[in-house]
Amino acid sequence: MKKVPILIIGFGVIGSGVARVISEKKEVIRSKYGIDFELVGIGEHNGCVVCPEGIDPMEAHKLKQEGALNRHPCWKSGMNSIDLIKEVGADIVIEATPTNINSGEPGLSHMMTAFNAKKHVVTSNKGPLAVAFQKLRKMAEKNGVHFRFEASVGGAMPVLNLVRETLQANDILGIEGILNGTCNYILTRMSTEGLPYEHVLSEAQELGIAEADPTYDVEGIDTACKLVILANAIFGMNVSYKGVDVTGITQITPEALKLASDDGYVIKLIGEIQDENRPRVAPRLVPKDHPLAVGGTLNVISLRTDLAGEITITGRGAGAVETSSSILSDLISVCEA
Amino acid sequence: MKKVPILIIGFGVIGSGVARVISEKKEVIRSKYGIDFELVGIGEHNGCVVCPEGIDPMEAHKLKQEGALNRHPCWKSGMNSIDLIKEVGADIVIEATPTNINSGEPGLSHMMTAFNAKKHVVTSNKGPLAVAFQKLRKMAEKNGVHFRFEASVGGAMPVLNLVRETLQANDILGIEGILNGTCNYILTRMSTEGLPYEHVLSEAQELGIAEADPTYDVEGIDTACKLVILANAIFGMNVSYKGVDVTGITQITPEALKLASDDGYVIKLIGEIQDENRPRVAPRLVPKDHPLAVGGTLNVISLRTDLAGEITITGRGAGAVETSSSILSDLISVCEA
Repeated sequence: MKKVPILIIGFGVIGSGVARVISEKKEVIRSKYGIDFELVGIGEHNGCVVCPEGIDPMEAHKLKQEGALNRHPCWKSGMNSIDLIKEVGADIVIEATPTNINSGEPGLSHMMTAFNAKKHVVTSNKGPLAVAFQKLRKMAEKNGVHFRFEASVGGAMPVLNLVRETLQANDILGIEGILNGTCNYILTRMSTEGLPYEHVLSEAQELGIAEADPTYDVEGIDTACKLVILANAIFGMNVSYKGVDVTGITQITPEALKLASDDGYVIKLIGEIQDENRPRVAPRLVPKDHPLAVGGTLNVISLRTDLAGEITITGRGAGAVETSSSILSDLISVCEA
Repeated sequence: MKKVPILIIGFGVIGSGVARVISEKKEVIRSKYGIDFELVGIGEHNGCVVCPEGIDPMEAHKLKQEGALNRHPCWKSGMNSIDLIKEVGADIVIEATPTNINSGEPGLSHMMTAFNAKKHVVTSNKGPLAVAFQKLRKMAEKNGVHFRFEASVGGAMPVLNLVRETLQANDILGIEGILNGTCNYILTRMSTEGLPYEHVLSEAQELGIAEADPTYDVEGIDTACKLVILANAIFGMNVSYKGVDVTGITQITPEALKLASDDGYVIKLIGEIQDENRPRVAPRLVPKDHPLAVGGTLNVISLRTDLAGEITITGRGAGAVETSSSILSDLISVCEA
């Protein structure tokens, strides 16, 4: 059995969700991969839990649910995550703090600190990758550690690992996809029910599918950030959010959707990278029986390849347990690399 | 650079296609993976090409295209593939002879001979897997070699490697999918054009999408064989073709498709495995915006998982170059394992 000490930085929905899943899947991971992930530190904005002998991940998850992580016997009030990453011995840092696409912070500093401390990073946090992808990639390389971020694009849906582990001999020629479940939900409901944008947006907000301030989703910003990650990781580009042409879905009317439908199309917010062109996010017509024409909150990515042709993958783009699937995939493959 | 000597048994569309792709991708595979696949033997029904110093795969591909493989300078008339596998030093055997779902031969003997000779097997051949999956798996294990068969299900579409390499921590709870491009083409055309089965079948035969004797495809036999492979490989079942309930598409009428369409559905030939139930192949109603509702000759597989939810992958189920993508993926992962 290989003991692998890990830190989780950011113990919100994703971070504490990962802790729960690591606890639930402990035996499976031990028997299938011979790996024992041992949580030795949790970093939060107001303090840390530190225990080199191991923290019970389910206990921490439950305390967090009760808003009482600071009652954990190993809680160190005021200790910051940077010091945790520097000082506590661990192989892998899971960075799951909230996304900030302007500065990338605090995730950016966490990741750089981890690399300098020769720790691998597995993350779901888009911000640092949208701001400083190539810098982070080079730092990881220079320090001889791995940098994995499957969960930052498409939640549970494997795309980076799909390309790396199942399409090894292929050149990827183009990527297009629906990368935001909120926009997909809104357009799907507008189309099937003939309802106006504002009406469906309110409904989505009530259901918790859209945020109170929906700008980040409906203006295409979230899609653009994910596209930046794909452009940098798969095409080796060096682009940031500002290098993407972005149009959101706020101008789409039920009439436009009806016209499209009558001709056998749906309208979807598509992010795309084709060859060396500038990445682009915009509403586009998609034939109804095309693999990209998926409804509800689903995400979908289609890869154009030289050998396999088009390969399309569909899955849930959000959710704590779903995202944990991608984080665990990265954790296991870091251990096996 | 790691030299990896390989044999290709069966040099038809798939086998010679793999040779061509190995030639075309030589530099990419060398630079990305440090692997140099060296073709040292080709087995055909009437003789073999044997050359321990290496066969130019593109030259062999071209000779085969001209129907003149027996003019290769290293051609040994009458030598059989079993002796080739036993006697010629190689790490991996690519088995690509025609599928026989009753006896599994000649592929079955080729694979067993390879395992006993401590050679890894990579294959696109469904026959031996539909007949004797667990026996083959155990032989590979006993001899300490790998057995990979991504290309046997869904052509270019990764499914076995997707599960193994990107969904490691997930339990797979169910599988459903369209595993036969011919049936999908026929049902798609019948639905969009309102044409009867016989008409579209003739059209598909003219286009080379359906065989002169279409039984194997339209009666669901091909789908059932692929389902058997998935059941055995992913669920650890021990079923053969006879353990599958099979209904084909020959009784589907344009009227049934029209009625389905009016209610927002399409009819597709779906293969499915749910929990411990008997695997089943039958026409089923699929909502039009569901990820399984893909048209044309596409294949699609949806995996129900405990963490990631539903993950669906779509791609081309046939074609020499497309299938080579899966075979190369297996070849590379065998070398890296």
